[in-house]
This record gives sequence, structure tokens and C-alpha cells, in this order.
Amino acid sequence: MADILHRVGIKSSLDEVYKALTTREGLAAWWTINTQGESNKVGGVIHFHFSVDGKEIGFFDMKVLELHPAKRVLWQVVDGPKEWISTKISWELKQEGDYSIVLFKHQDWKEPVEFMHHCSTKWAIFLMSLKSLLETGKGAPSPNDVIIGDWH
Amino acid sequence: MADILHRVGIKSSLDEVYKALTTREGLAAWWTINTQGESNKVGGVIHFHFSVDGKEIGFFDMKVLELHPAKRVLWQVVDGPKEWISTKISWELKQEGDYSIVLFKHQDWKEPVEFMHHCSTKWAIFLMSLKSLLETGKGAPSPNDVIIGDWH
Repeated sequence: MADILHRVGIKSSLDEVYKALTTREGLAAWWTINTQGESNKVGGVIHFHFSVDGKEIGFFDMKVLELHPAKRVLWQVVDGPKEWISTKISWELKQEGDYSIVLFKHQDWKEPVEFMHHCSTKWAIFLMSLKSLLETGKGAPSPNDVIIGDWH
Repeated sequence: MADILHRVGIKSSLDEVYKALTTREGLAAWWTINTQGESNKVGGVIHFHFSVDGKEIGFFDMKVLELHPAKRVLWQVVDGPKEWISTKISWELKQEGDYSIVLFKHQDWKEPVEFMHHCSTKWAIFLMSLKSLLETGKGAPSPNDVIIGDWH
């Protein structure tokens, strides 16, 4: 098993970060504008769809396993690319001085495949989009996300 | 043991990417302007120093273990933060269509500590600096790097 880890510090309140991770509007403003489903209920399923030049290139369906306001969110992938199925994504939040710290983990990849390398870099890009959304009011969600190579 | 993985695609030749990873000038243009030592000789040691507002905040000393032009570079950390000592950093290069693909691995962390989360995100930022350097002629090396939180 292998995990993707990240840490960003955001000049914003824990409540605002939590809201950006648990509301459809928040998620659509930093990850992908095509976000549907139930993001703020344990047991709900969130549908994230991605497109390039108007054509869908992929999707992830996440089941919400845990919601602890201003503290922790846990999702499990229930549909999407085969490498993602059953992996879990956890968000731990804590205050450090002026910053809300986000400890991110995309855990339980079966193998450290090349696609995992790509997803690790891309998660960093989207975490910077989350940071930008909360600090400046403007994120860079798909399809306006920063491109990191041939795999978008 | 735990590894940091990343993948970026750069519109540049493999030779140019290799040069940016193995010359003092190249490294100084995307990672840290204060790069010293022997980067293009197996057995050489490269010194990377980082500062904020003119004050040194840390350094890494890397021994060059492998150099395969346009293909692969391997370093081992011989001095720096205790969590980094003995870890290895590998760069695998390959062509995919118009892109030079960089597969990056910072391997053999003893524990997935919070500092590892930070370094993972920060490596993504510096890989984007490398990409920018090669595609636009301008990177964002320390101390002009993108800040990701309270740990810079």
C-alpha cells in the first residue's frame, strides 16, 4: 500500500476550510466545477466530473465516511479509475498561528504506479487552488486548472 | 519506509531537462539560487542552501550516485534535516509525444511525518518551477519560490 501526502497552510478559518471541503459550492470552486451529489452528509456520495475542451475525461465518486466540523473529513472512492477504487482521502484540519493547516492523505493505493505519481502532483496543484480560493476568493477548478503535462 | 512521488510533463528535450538537473546553473534556476558543489560528477556533493528574508533557513547536501544522460539521475542526502538523511531522490526521464516526462521519487523516508507531507507539496511546487524554467525560460527558485504555508 502507498499513500500520497500533502500539507498546506491557509490564511483562513478552520470553518471556512471545512466549508470548502464539505459543500458543493466550495468543492466546485477549487476542484472541479462539475461537482454533484451529497457532500455534507455521512453516507452521501459526491460525483466529481472532469472535462477538457467540453469532453468528459474522467470522474470520481466519493462516499463520505466521516465529517467532523472544522477538524476532519474522510471520503472513500466508490467509482472512477480502477487504481482509485477503495482508496481513501482524508483531510485533517488544525490551527497553527495565523494558518489553518490542511494535512491531506490519499491512502491505500495498491501499487505506486505512474498514475499515482501524476495524481500526487495534481493533488498539490488542487490544494494550491483551495488555498487560493480561501485567501483570494478565486480558485482554479477544472476545467480551468493548472496543466502539469500530457495527462492534464 | 515511505516515498514521495510526482510526475510532470515538460515541453522541452530530454537533454535540456537533464541539464537543468545536473548543472549548477540549471539547479539554481529552479530549486534554489544558492546551489554550490559538484552536480555533474558521480561521487560529487551538491550543496543546496535556502534562505528567507536573507536568513538561512536550511540546507540539503546531496551526493550524486548515478548520472545517465537524458535518462536518470540519483542523489542521496548526506546532510540536512534529520528526516532527510540517507533518503534518496531519483529522477527518471522519458519521452512521450511532445513531452519530456519526469518521474520523481524521494524515497525511503523512515516515517510519514508531517514534515514529509510538507516536502511532498513543496516538491510539486519546485517541479512546476522546473517545468516553467524549461518552457518559458523563467523558474521560481528559492528565495522567490511559491509559499505553501507557515513552513514556507
